[in-house]
Amino acid sequence: MKVLFIGDIVGSIGRNMLYDYLPRLKRKYAADVIIANGENAASGRGITRAIFDDLLRAGVDIVTMGNHTWDQKEIYDFIDETEYLIRPANFSEEAPGKGMTTITKNGITMSVINLHGRTFLPPHADPFEKADLLIEEAKKISPLVFVDFHAEATSEKIAMGWHLDGKASVVVGTHTHVQTADERILPNGTAYLTDAGMTGPYDEVLGMKKEDVIYRFKTNMPVRFEVPKKGRAQLSGLIVEIDDLNGKAKSIERILINEDHRFEG
Amino acid sequence: MKVLFIGDIVGSIGRNMLYDYLPRLKRKYAADVIIANGENAASGRGITRAIFDDLLRAGVDIVTMGNHTWDQKEIYDFIDETEYLIRPANFSEEAPGKGMTTITKNGITMSVINLHGRTFLPPHADPFEKADLLIEEAKKISPLVFVDFHAEATSEKIAMGWHLDGKASVVVGTHTHVQTADERILPNGTAYLTDAGMTGPYDEVLGMKKEDVIYRFKTNMPVRFEVPKKGRAQLSGLIVEIDDLNGKAKSIERILINEDHRFEG
Amino acid sequence: MKVLFIGDIVGSIGRNMLYDYLPRLKRKYAADVIIANGENAASGRGITRAIFDDLLRAGVDIVTMGNHTWDQKEIYDFIDETEYLIRPANFSEEAPGKGMTTITKNGITMSVINLHGRTFLPPHADPFEKADLLIEEAKKISPLVFVDFHAEATSEKIAMGWHLDGKASVVVGTHTHVQTADERILPNGTAYLTDAGMTGPYDEVLGMKKEDVIYRFKTNMPVRFEVPKKGRAQLSGLIVEIDDLNGKAKSIERILINEDHRFEG
Amino acid sequence: MKVLFIGDIVGSIGRNMLYDYLPRLKRKYAADVIIANGENAASGRGITRAIFDDLLRAGVDIVTMGNHTWDQKEIYDFIDETEYLIRPANFSEEAPGKGMTTITKNGITMSVINLHGRTFLPPHADPFEKADLLIEEAKKISPLVFVDFHAEATSEKIAMGWHLDGKASVVVGTHTHVQTADERILPNGTAYLTDAGMTGPYDEVLGMKKEDVIYRFKTNMPVRFEVPKKGRAQLSGLIVEIDDLNGKAKSIERILINEDHRFEG
Ligand SMILES: [Fe+2]
Ligand SMILES: [Fe+2]
Ligand SMILES: [Fe+2]
Ligand SMILES: [Fe+2]
Ligand SMILES: [Fe+2]
Ligand SMILES: [Fe+2]
Ligand SMILES: [Fe+2]
Ligand SMILES: [Fe+2]
Repeated sequence: MKVLFIGDIVGSIGRNMLYDYLPRLKRKYAADVIIANGENAASGRGITRAIFDDLLRAGVDIVTMGNHTWDQKEIYDFIDETEYLIRPANFSEEAPGKGMTTITKNGITMSVINLHGRTFLPPHADPFEKADLLIEEAKKISPLVFVDFHAEATSEKIAMGWHLDGKASVVVGTHTHVQTADERILPNGTAYLTDAGMTGPYDEVLGMKKEDVIYRFKTNMPVRFEVPKKGRAQLSGLIVEIDDLNGKAKSIERILINEDHRFEG
Repeated sequence: MKVLFIGDIVGSIGRNMLYDYLPRLKRKYAADVIIANGENAASGRGITRAIFDDLLRAGVDIVTMGNHTWDQKEIYDFIDETEYLIRPANFSEEAPGKGMTTITKNGITMSVINLHGRTFLPPHADPFEKADLLIEEAKKISPLVFVDFHAEATSEKIAMGWHLDGKASVVVGTHTHVQTADERILPNGTAYLTDAGMTGPYDEVLGMKKEDVIYRFKTNMPVRFEVPKKGRAQLSGLIVEIDDLNGKAKSIERILINEDHRFEG
Repeated sequence: MKVLFIGDIVGSIGRNMLYDYLPRLKRKYAADVIIANGENAASGRGITRAIFDDLLRAGVDIVTMGNHTWDQKEIYDFIDETEYLIRPANFSEEAPGKGMTTITKNGITMSVINLHGRTFLPPHADPFEKADLLIEEAKKISPLVFVDFHAEATSEKIAMGWHLDGKASVVVGTHTHVQTADERILPNGTAYLTDAGMTGPYDEVLGMKKEDVIYRFKTNMPVRFEVPKKGRAQLSGLIVEIDDLNGKAKSIERILINEDHRFEG
Repeated sequence: MKVLFIGDIVGSIGRNMLYDYLPRLKRKYAADVIIANGENAASGRGITRAIFDDLLRAGVDIVTMGNHTWDQKEIYDFIDETEYLIRPANFSEEAPGKGMTTITKNGITMSVINLHGRTFLPPHADPFEKADLLIEEAKKISPLVFVDFHAEATSEKIAMGWHLDGKASVVVGTHTHVQTADERILPNGTAYLTDAGMTGPYDEVLGMKKEDVIYRFKTNMPVRFEVPKKGRAQLSGLIVEIDDLNGKAKSIERILINEDHRFEG
């Protein structure tokens, strides 16, 4: 099974970049499953039902989330109605939604898990323990397990990669909005990348207008960050091929499309 | 001028990797100046005089530091005796050492500045303001200015990149120990990379034994992290070509050497 | 000079408590000057012009602020028009308003300084250095100097107390909304209290509805905290007598009024 | 049952202060049970077997701990051998020791629970959930339950007080080393105090030499903090009377002894 993962989609610039390139990416990589992190899809803050529907129509199979999950209040209304939108599994037991789902394509089933880090972030339940519990459950269904670990610290993400080496098919990080260059297949068969990077504005800071972010760093004064409506875009992602029989990764390749790294179809 | 930058050197594995590849890298890239971050060179914690001397002998011209600057107490004894070792410029006025130096090679002079981030880190002096002050001073000597911004958050590093676009020749991040894939030349001529990555163990967590780091994340119990003495290594860095006349970057290329990304000489 | 200080006024419950007791407190303590922290006066978030005017009408001479300074956007319109509203002096140079003012009563002049901590808080300018600079300036006018240090960590507040012992007449902390019991006159004549406590709801968490705060701690889910409109109230403060000639504190007494600690007129 | 609680004992100054006043306090208050927080008893960092034995000999019945639990490595050797030393119950399942114990005096049994906060602190297991579980267990033995909540933020501590109101007999905070003045009996019968304060040096910062702490705040340079061996001392604590039949608090009184607040026998 070939899985295409798209990093944090930010605002309309990010969504349009995705809609523009997804057909070409599917064709080029013959991806069976498409997973995208949508925590910033709605103007940088959460996701709406309309945007979620648009992402599915565009070909995304599963949407994962992160710390911005609850930014758009309407998510409370639809997160429990769909199998294709998950939020970090180590959120509170009282949180709506769920943190693991499955997708079947061409007769092959894969579990998809979303987890949240705790370093420089709120004290959610232990993501390492939660990963173990969920993967044990997932393995009853299929050896293919995909993990989106939404976390800040490189140490926590790499530790998760090693912790799940041989247990998950893929561990990919999200949240920092900058793609890392450390893609590899760990010794026991887990494809790993610290961060997939983001899909959104190319000339801003994590997708937010750079002048505002710089002003905040320089002054510590309150600023409401905005995602611009216009400007150059980038798409960041990952393509992984997983062995259908044993769930081990066979290959991993980063995808980065912007004016400095042009798509070659 | 061609500048080779080597990301955080961690322990003896990192130093040996550097000693092994530096001659080949110099030959391949015809680097005029070699700068290396040495904050983890001594078993992951700071730098000793002996290691500093070894790095210079191996061909490193300038060593930059970071949050681990003072880990080896002997640095207090030699940091003020050399022009080739700098620590973050926005450390306290009372701190020994300095945060900017110059290097002249083949008749071309370049200033090298080390700065420290404040997000998820101690409240040092404002690195944006300090950067402006130092670059103004540096520009009196030469248009070539190299900045190593040692920081945790991608937002703060990217904001610094945009803030210095057109003022510095190069802004490269260090500290997260994971190389990012976002190298580019910003519109006004500054070569930028969020993090150069580290030079050290390839199969651990930021260079520290992975079992210990995983144990700490899972238990929050105290553990003394250690850099292993043996194991596979990686080297992470950057090569930038700068226009000698106007200080603008002409090209930027990431360097990543490990068993999954082999060196091609 | 006798100075009455009122800790963080929270919402209408806090303001009404102040309006209710201020005449009695003035009478009981014969206070010459009344200073109040107003950073939470408007529904827990900042201060409006109408509320500021009401506080002055009620007898408050100077209002100090804290991390909530900018919560009500209209403060940008009036902070520069008055001498009686100050915000932390170590905020950015670009911030409106100022961090020190003076008040003259019965021929005696006192400077009032507002400072902000940095531990567990944003990296504002160094409050220790700023305190030194401002007090040097203030001493040219009068030996009487009052400092409201708005900070989270007890270590930072106590350190400031010792740092300013003999330089300031009073160092009182705000921000934690819980009055501490460590009032004392330090060896060189500075009256010190780690936190004055808050003036607002008595049966909530820092003035915010307790059910919401408990829910957030238990779930880490987003909740908008609200100050209730009804309920029992408390008033927290401090009365200090300062020697008019040398600016040294002569006495310090905590004030705490609630149903468990009744006011004795 | 009358319970005397002694806040964080810091170093030999704190231990000697305790040894000096404990007989007088027992006499004055007729305390049945004496509980003391000992996380800083050994030079400010953890506790040794010898110090633990000395505390018991001096009359302490139960010692509670906090973030400094593991500072002295020898605790690993004796924590599982005694019923009278507990560490935060929401530490890892893999941690030695336990977080709840019982004490019986004059035929009355009381459970004692130690919990750790998570705000500005590592992401331990949820202390609110853990409190519920342990108190349910404790209630099978006796209605008397004493909780030492070792935490930084006033919000988290007050939230715990309200959360346990009517479930615990006493909720007292430790860790900030400054006694708060908000002792009260909550509406459902729980005696509450945000922080008991510390027992140790009176003229330092949280018990550590003030010059060093001020230097660190001013410079962000590394400093090893030390507890002085000589100097004036203070003792901080609490006396609570609990109804033996229903476990509800009948009275709560702060204890603070130093040269500004002298003991009256
Ligand atoms: Fe994101
Ligand atoms: Fe995120
Ligand atoms: Fe670092
Ligand atoms: Fe490093
Ligand atoms: Fe406040
Ligand atoms: Fe505040
Ligand atoms: Fe503590
Ligand atoms: Fe303590």
